[in-house]
Amino acid sequence: MFTTILSKRWRPRIAARTPPGTAPGTLAADPEAPPPVIRVMAYDADEVLEETLETPRAIADYMDKWPVVWVNVDGVGDAETIRTVGELFGLHPLALEDVANSRQRPKFEEYDKHAFIVVRMPGLAEHTLSTEQVSMFLGANFVVTFQEWQGDCFDPVRKRIRESTRGRFVRADYLVYALLDAVVDSYFPALEGLSERLDDLEEEIAAAPTVEVVGRIFATKHELHALRRAIWPTRDLLNALIRDPVALVSDSTKTYLRDCYDHAVRIVDLVETYRDLNSGLMEFYQSSVGHRMNEIMKVLTIMATIFIPLTFIAGIYGMNFSAERSPWNMPELNWYWGYPFALLLMALVTVGMVAFFRRKGWLG
Amino acid sequence: MFTTILSKRWRPRIAARTPPGTAPGTLAADPEAPPPVIRVMAYDADEVLEETLETPRAIADYMDKWPVVWVNVDGVGDAETIRTVGELFGLHPLALEDVANSRQRPKFEEYDKHAFIVVRMPGLAEHTLSTEQVSMFLGANFVVTFQEWQGDCFDPVRKRIRESTRGRFVRADYLVYALLDAVVDSYFPALEGLSERLDDLEEEIAAAPTVEVVGRIFATKHELHALRRAIWPTRDLLNALIRDPVALVSDSTKTYLRDCYDHAVRIVDLVETYRDLNSGLMEFYQSSVGHRMNEIMKVLTIMATIFIPLTFIAGIYGMNFSAERSPWNMPELNWYWGYPFALLLMALVTVGMVAFFRRKGWLG
Amino acid sequence: MFTTILSKRWRPRIAARTPPGTAPGTLAADPEAPPPVIRVMAYDADEVLEETLETPRAIADYMDKWPVVWVNVDGVGDAETIRTVGELFGLHPLALEDVANSRQRPKFEEYDKHAFIVVRMPGLAEHTLSTEQVSMFLGANFVVTFQEWQGDCFDPVRKRIRESTRGRFVRADYLVYALLDAVVDSYFPALEGLSERLDDLEEEIAAAPTVEVVGRIFATKHELHALRRAIWPTRDLLNALIRDPVALVSDSTKTYLRDCYDHAVRIVDLVETYRDLNSGLMEFYQSSVGHRMNEIMKVLTIMATIFIPLTFIAGIYGMNFSAERSPWNMPELNWYWGYPFALLLMALVTVGMVAFFRRKGWLG
Amino acid sequence: MFTTILSKRWRPRIAARTPPGTAPGTLAADPEAPPPVIRVMAYDADEVLEETLETPRAIADYMDKWPVVWVNVDGVGDAETIRTVGELFGLHPLALEDVANSRQRPKFEEYDKHAFIVVRMPGLAEHTLSTEQVSMFLGANFVVTFQEWQGDCFDPVRKRIRESTRGRFVRADYLVYALLDAVVDSYFPALEGLSERLDDLEEEIAAAPTVEVVGRIFATKHELHALRRAIWPTRDLLNALIRDPVALVSDSTKTYLRDCYDHAVRIVDLVETYRDLNSGLMEFYQSSVGHRMNEIMKVLTIMATIFIPLTFIAGIYGMNFSAERSPWNMPELNWYWGYPFALLLMALVTVGMVAFFRRKGWLG
Amino acid sequence: MFTTILSKRWRPRIAARTPPGTAPGTLAADPEAPPPVIRVMAYDADEVLEETLETPRAIADYMDKWPVVWVNVDGVGDAETIRTVGELFGLHPLALEDVANSRQRPKFEEYDKHAFIVVRMPGLAEHTLSTEQVSMFLGANFVVTFQEWQGDCFDPVRKRIRESTRGRFVRADYLVYALLDAVVDSYFPALEGLSERLDDLEEEIAAAPTVEVVGRIFATKHELHALRRAIWPTRDLLNALIRDPVALVSDSTKTYLRDCYDHAVRIVDLVETYRDLNSGLMEFYQSSVGHRMNEIMKVLTIMATIFIPLTFIAGIYGMNFSAERSPWNMPELNWYWGYPFALLLMALVTVGMVAFFRRKGWLG
Repeated sequence: MFTTILSKRWRPRIAARTPPGTAPGTLAADPEAPPPVIRVMAYDADEVLEETLETPRAIADYMDKWPVVWVNVDGVGDAETIRTVGELFGLHPLALEDVANSRQRPKFEEYDKHAFIVVRMPGLAEHTLSTEQVSMFLGANFVVTFQEWQGDCFDPVRKRIRESTRGRFVRADYLVYALLDAVVDSYFPALEGLSERLDDLEEEIAAAPTVEVVGRIFATKHELHALRRAIWPTRDLLNALIRDPVALVSDSTKTYLRDCYDHAVRIVDLVETYRDLNSGLMEFYQSSVGHRMNEIMKVLTIMATIFIPLTFIAGIYGMNFSAERSPWNMPELNWYWGYPFALLLMALVTVGMVAFFRRKGWLG
Repeated sequence: MFTTILSKRWRPRIAARTPPGTAPGTLAADPEAPPPVIRVMAYDADEVLEETLETPRAIADYMDKWPVVWVNVDGVGDAETIRTVGELFGLHPLALEDVANSRQRPKFEEYDKHAFIVVRMPGLAEHTLSTEQVSMFLGANFVVTFQEWQGDCFDPVRKRIRESTRGRFVRADYLVYALLDAVVDSYFPALEGLSERLDDLEEEIAAAPTVEVVGRIFATKHELHALRRAIWPTRDLLNALIRDPVALVSDSTKTYLRDCYDHAVRIVDLVETYRDLNSGLMEFYQSSVGHRMNEIMKVLTIMATIFIPLTFIAGIYGMNFSAERSPWNMPELNWYWGYPFALLLMALVTVGMVAFFRRKGWLG
Repeated sequence: MFTTILSKRWRPRIAARTPPGTAPGTLAADPEAPPPVIRVMAYDADEVLEETLETPRAIADYMDKWPVVWVNVDGVGDAETIRTVGELFGLHPLALEDVANSRQRPKFEEYDKHAFIVVRMPGLAEHTLSTEQVSMFLGANFVVTFQEWQGDCFDPVRKRIRESTRGRFVRADYLVYALLDAVVDSYFPALEGLSERLDDLEEEIAAAPTVEVVGRIFATKHELHALRRAIWPTRDLLNALIRDPVALVSDSTKTYLRDCYDHAVRIVDLVETYRDLNSGLMEFYQSSVGHRMNEIMKVLTIMATIFIPLTFIAGIYGMNFSAERSPWNMPELNWYWGYPFALLLMALVTVGMVAFFRRKGWLG
Repeated sequence: MFTTILSKRWRPRIAARTPPGTAPGTLAADPEAPPPVIRVMAYDADEVLEETLETPRAIADYMDKWPVVWVNVDGVGDAETIRTVGELFGLHPLALEDVANSRQRPKFEEYDKHAFIVVRMPGLAEHTLSTEQVSMFLGANFVVTFQEWQGDCFDPVRKRIRESTRGRFVRADYLVYALLDAVVDSYFPALEGLSERLDDLEEEIAAAPTVEVVGRIFATKHELHALRRAIWPTRDLLNALIRDPVALVSDSTKTYLRDCYDHAVRIVDLVETYRDLNSGLMEFYQSSVGHRMNEIMKVLTIMATIFIPLTFIAGIYGMNFSAERSPWNMPELNWYWGYPFALLLMALVTVGMVAFFRRKGWLG
Repeated sequence: MFTTILSKRWRPRIAARTPPGTAPGTLAADPEAPPPVIRVMAYDADEVLEETLETPRAIADYMDKWPVVWVNVDGVGDAETIRTVGELFGLHPLALEDVANSRQRPKFEEYDKHAFIVVRMPGLAEHTLSTEQVSMFLGANFVVTFQEWQGDCFDPVRKRIRESTRGRFVRADYLVYALLDAVVDSYFPALEGLSERLDDLEEEIAAAPTVEVVGRIFATKHELHALRRAIWPTRDLLNALIRDPVALVSDSTKTYLRDCYDHAVRIVDLVETYRDLNSGLMEFYQSSVGHRMNEIMKVLTIMATIFIPLTFIAGIYGMNFSAERSPWNMPELNWYWGYPFALLLMALVTVGMVAFFRRKGWLG
């Protein structure tokens, strides 16, 4: 039950790295990864050509023949594929190393002939929100994207390319904007899911504050933390793209990136708000637990405080002092109204206690 | 009862958005929204003309004929209206998308021919403080404002235009200042309402610290958080308007904006102070609960500690050792003053205990 | 009792404002305020002339005839007076609005012909530290100051002017420095008062941690918060005066302002330290309450744990099993040493319990 | 048991310093330190020469004869060795003082003829993560490194030099990059160890929240704090190396340093995340302890609340009122069904209580 | 006992100030202070002359005759001495006012002919760490230092001057560096003392968490706070000395100051670490107290839960139902094995309870 709190999925993974001291640019292959799937979209203002390739070498057929060639690789476990794609487009070895090692923070780097952008796409895996690394290379007439797994949020972009009624898509930098925008906007449904979970948690605490709910609050905290670590640097890289002079990004595209940046800022805001709500839930849990504890103590105190004096009175008249020896020894035992007198005494004590508790406000 | 804590209205709404990957500039229509109401105010130094229009196309009759045309649209649910207004004045599609999607942060953006400002106006909805988005476009001779709902804080501005004894109103940038000032100043009554609520909460905690009050403290926390998210960027955009060179804003208007900025800074101050007071209430609640717990435990301890020894004494003399077999077996039972002796013993124990508690300071 | 925590005086007042949307520069008159008192000090290197004026118009007699004219107005409730003074010296309407509305943050603003400075002077009102707004206008040959109430910390400055053995007073900017220095230095005695209160609070908590003390800790917290909100921007405006080129402030005066700035920095330091000490008092309160709770529980546990077994033993020998029917039925009752045996048993249990508690370290 | 919390190894060591007021550049010798081990690697594009030297003087044989000479000294306890190496390469006395005093923060300093870099290498000592100081000097054609103890993370670098298929190693600045990269990457396995410990701690808390676990949470907190103090300035010095113009570092090496900087940023991220997880463990511990306390109190309350009334009923019928004197004195004692009636009464009370607890949700 | 928490020595002293509104440059004399002791060290590369002067006027004999004259004054209570020294060296009146008023923050100020530096030297007074103000004036060929009390950390510097084998001492700015270095390094032994105290506190909490220990944790917190307020601005002033162009400080001395700055940064680090450790002690105290509370409650619950049912059973068989009237009235009393049966019943209940507690993990 408790093992959900720090379960392995919350800890940022470190494992799949090259060992310390390895030469830079070394590509680590992951033998268990599924084989990569390579898809090409090449288009100009008139025509769109889509293909799934068997081998990375086949990319060469499309290069430099279209205004924009978009190569998308799903799966980064095969070092050979990454190396081949890198060679074809002249990508920097250090950037390729980052593609293969999918634990990067979002970042933007400009190389001689191309720009390199890493972002992270949120997604559910086993009821847990995690992020998938998306690496993008922007060249003069190409865009190369690498994703960790199959399945992405780029289908609406593909649809818009196919239906491309607008001329602005026929620029590599606008395509990169459209992809970045799709990634940033995919945080919204992820946050909506978290928002519903916060609702559920609140209802559960109100119903019964169990320890299990603490585990889930912590789990949500760590998911929000992961989103935060993914979206903050994304916001910064978008800001850098807008503000700094970047050779491959035109001013008209920057206007669109500014819109994308605004969305990133709003996501940062939402993440911070949800973190706040989540830690509010923890406080709420503690208040509820404290409230229950008080209820328990109050019941104990009321019961004990009422019955302890009554039991004492019963104890008194259970004593065996010999009434025969002395008229002072427990004469009540021989009174005609002795027993009713004792019961009345007990009733009076009870009434007094209840009055005391009512005055203290402990009843109801 | 508890469901007020994180009820839906505290969570910044995400829903009414276009899906991820949609083309930028897409206007999302909300079919449930009431039809928009379009009002025009056109004036020069001598004359003021006011009209409520049936169709956005009618705006064209006023354009470029007056030094200042102010078009105000209440309701942003109809994409067609927004698009038409945008076309007439040449507004940027990305800005229009932000108008339709009413979850924007306050911001200021300069486009080629106009400036775009988003602010948020506080207002009560179902006893809850929320904020309404107000989008403003400032052109050379026009001001266009979009509001989410009917009802605003601009009536004093309209009145001043009608009575316009001062020439400075006959500039679009001064009108925008007047509107911004009205929005910023409308935070003051909202904060006053919160201030009264803090008073009420404090009195309730002092009277009886119930769990329900925790819910209301959290609710207030989230309202203050929402105000904060609305006023901080407003302050920043006012600062940008004053500090940066903005083509459409004259230096004389900047002097007035500086005054408006001062008000925004004071609101930020007030919001931070109220957040502080509110979290102080939570601490106060916890102190009160702890105090009550101590009271309960003290009563239990005093009662138990006094009566447990008494009951024990009664128990002793309720034992059935046979006094006939031995002079050592409970001779007290046959003493002449046996029972009075036992009662006296009990009285002594009670007095001793009370003295002990008094010395500990637990009584009174 | 509890109502001291958030009582109205801690909440920054919002009320006395012009309603939202009012034209800028509108002077709000407060009909309940006492009539303003106007005092003029006009002097050159040789002579000092002091006068209390009946009407603001009389100021005109002194203007431009002396190197320095200092007009001090106590009371800002009469809009007419403020307007007249403003007209005479050509003060900006927005600055005058800030004078009338005495809820300003300390700030420094430079206008065409004069500079405008707002600071806040600490003072006790009904055992509560609050701050009074002091607005200063610095012109080429005049200084105008507005204070909310009668009574100020400027008497030593007046005395130094009268005795003015030093030539440097014969400059308006040096006079403003002297007034600012007096205001800043008046925080020291205010802080000393708070320091003594912290001492008192600590002694009270050590003696008996009552809930009432929590209220006073919160009250002190809010007073410190108010001082903080007053001194931080004061420090910043002094820094701006020193660092920025200000036409009306000479370099030699800046050397003195640097000294004044140092004092402001020290006050900021002190305020932060006292905030720290005050929140330490809250922690100390909680430790004391927790300690008392432990004491109570310990007494209850010791008493209950000792007497519960004893009462049980007494209960055993109070059972009525018929010893006549069987030699196994409570033979102890008929032993010669039965009663002493039972008492010994109880004594042994008591000794054992006491030894157990002593080993646990619960006794003493 | 508790002594692990602040045990000496958590406190940053201060002791092995020169006394206050000592002349700068004084080298403090540590007589207990093991004798230093000096290893030289000298190489050009074709050949690699490795040697372990008996005396620091022997270094002179290699100097200025190879494009790169790397002198590595393990052990900084012998002042004479440090001084000799310093004289041979013309190292600055203040830098040499920092080498001898192994409590430095990571830093980068540029001197006339060489650059000086201090970093800290994480390592386990007695089950505790600590950091070892590595001091590096970068000259035009030499690299000198000093380590506190034997054993380092440089073996992969040595291997790469020996196998050096790539020409870029034949530059001193690239060698320094490779060493820095090895040090930075050695934080990853250290963090992985901590990550496993966090898992273990969580399982232990879930099983039984003992006080001992608090000690280990604090220990982990301090280890993370130590890593943080080591990696933050490392990140900053890498940033300075990339951003500032440094005479001895070429632009091509800076591209590699940028990669190394990215790793440092990720380590900073990880350290912050683990700090967060660790303080989450403390909260989890407290929740668990509170939960256990509630369980204990609940059992006490249920037992006491059920049995106290039962014992009272038994006490009633243990009273000795004389039934012979009056028909009102305890007639139940002589009823035919008296005893079954009493038992039934007790059973009813029990059932009532259990129903009450079930309704409160205290059972199960 | 409790009075140690906020005792007067923790509160930064405010008292010994000139009243608000006093003319700047006024020197406050403290009549209770001991008479100042004036020592002169004048030297060139060959010769060192040391003298203790009777009167400040005697300083004139040394001025402008040596490359470096160092005047050290112990005790700042005599305004006349300070004024005379100031006049001789032409020191600025505002700086002299700061010398007399020994509550300054560390700072660096440049005047026309000299620089003025204030630092604070840590020292023990009545088992409490406090700081003493050291004011330094650096001129072209003189250094003047004022200390509050006799006794300082400058003896090693004096010794180095006397033995001065190195030429660099024959510069006033190098002497100031040496003095600053001695002051900064004197924080290390002070911190070492605090480190030992933290050890002691930890052992005491582990042995028995008394309220008294809370007082000492708070005391340490305030001492660390005082060190922090002294060392942070010291670090900043060293940074300013290095970074800014200062006429009187040569570049070669700046290299040494950089070393001194590094030490200040390390002290800042240590202070922050100790603050962390100290607040960790408070958490540890609370955990220990909570643990003890749990222990107490567990003992109470175990004792009560075992004995309450036993006492109830004894109570049952102490009832007086008349067995003669009915075979259903307490037949157990007349069973042959009645008493053993009751004892067995009690033993079974006890065994059951112990098993229950063992399963809950409450035993051992």
